[in-house]
Amino acid sequence: MDKFYRINLINSIAGYKSLNLLGTTSSDGITNLSIVSSAFHLGSNPPLLGIVLRPEREHNDTLSNIRDTLHYTLNNVQPEWLNQAHQTSASYPSGVSEFDQCGFTKEYVPAFKAPFVQQSSIRIGLEVRDIIGMEINGTTIIIGEVIHILTDSGVIGEDGFTDHEKAESIVVNGLDAYYLPKFKVRLPYAKPGINSSLKSQVHGV
Amino acid sequence: MDKFYRINLINSIAGYKSLNLLGTTSSDGITNLSIVSSAFHLGSNPPLLGIVLRPEREHNDTLSNIRDTLHYTLNNVQPEWLNQAHQTSASYPSGVSEFDQCGFTKEYVPAFKAPFVQQSSIRIGLEVRDIIGMEINGTTIIIGEVIHILTDSGVIGEDGFTDHEKAESIVVNGLDAYYLPKFKVRLPYAKPGINSSLKSQVHGV
Repeated sequence: MDKFYRINLINSIAGYKSLNLLGTTSSDGITNLSIVSSAFHLGSNPPLLGIVLRPEREHNDTLSNIRDTLHYTLNNVQPEWLNQAHQTSASYPSGVSEFDQCGFTKEYVPAFKAPFVQQSSIRIGLEVRDIIGMEINGTTIIIGEVIHILTDSGVIGEDGFTDHEKAESIVVNGLDAYYLPKFKVRLPYAKPGINSSLKSQVHGV
Repeated sequence: MDKFYRINLINSIAGYKSLNLLGTTSSDGITNLSIVSSAFHLGSNPPLLGIVLRPEREHNDTLSNIRDTLHYTLNNVQPEWLNQAHQTSASYPSGVSEFDQCGFTKEYVPAFKAPFVQQSSIRIGLEVRDIIGMEINGTTIIIGEVIHILTDSGVIGEDGFTDHEKAESIVVNGLDAYYLPKFKVRLPYAKPGINSSLKSQVHGV
């Protein structure tokens, strides 16, 4: 199988992926911003999210920053500045901040080292709880506990549900295809015995 | 923080999640189907996907099936039978198959033990490569290698890109809110030095 065919296929086969800008800083204050599509929910109590980082390379500042400072941020991506967010995936040299190169504004919270993206409508601050080196392919799984949640007003509902349509959060498919989801339906908690053979009431598809 | 508020918040805060039906079988042939939103891309060479399974309980057949047979499937969810897919999250007793209870048809591939969902337009067969028990919260991360990919015709492009809009793949937000993404833009490979201050050309948002 051709290398690029395989990369496209395996990056896209399992479905749409969440899209976030991952903000970090080195211990001497050089900030870094990269776009990630690997965030996953590990558990709610304690509140834990995972991300996958690619194999360590010379310029992989993100991983060394997380190891050094233990703090990082995940910030959602909105259509108005999607091009700028995509541009953070370019291979900038160490010592250059993607915040400056790609036009993002840093936002800080007291006693929390990593920078948030001021433009994002949802900004999550995490502290490392586990770092898992994957022998099988050299990637690293970072497990972090959610320490801070900053959002624009009205994004989080009374029941804790985050309204990503209101937040204008983009999703990604594969490496480079971007989409905006449209709400279809919210379904009640499922119990055995309810007739599930009825077709879904989802129209306009 | 209220328990259900926190569950809703942490399940939804990091963005939309891919949605798949996870198919397994016990060593004595009792099939199991559950809905999962934790699939993530670990790497393309070898082709690896991860999923998170909740803490082992008495009726957690999925995890024991994967340990016993080493095979499992991920199958995308389409609007026409979303209610049936959601219904697989009900707590059925062991010995009862969600394929039968929720109206799904099993499909098999020679020498591969786990059942695929015949209704799905994208069906992935995986073999376990790593099982990581997470001490921090009792969850389990399963790493699997993609062994089989079955799709309806036209879903995978010439460059390997999976067209989830054509496949009608649903995404989930939080525990119970379902969406269909609409394509906005596919962006070229990013390189340093290109003017990224231009606003994205994403209209109709």
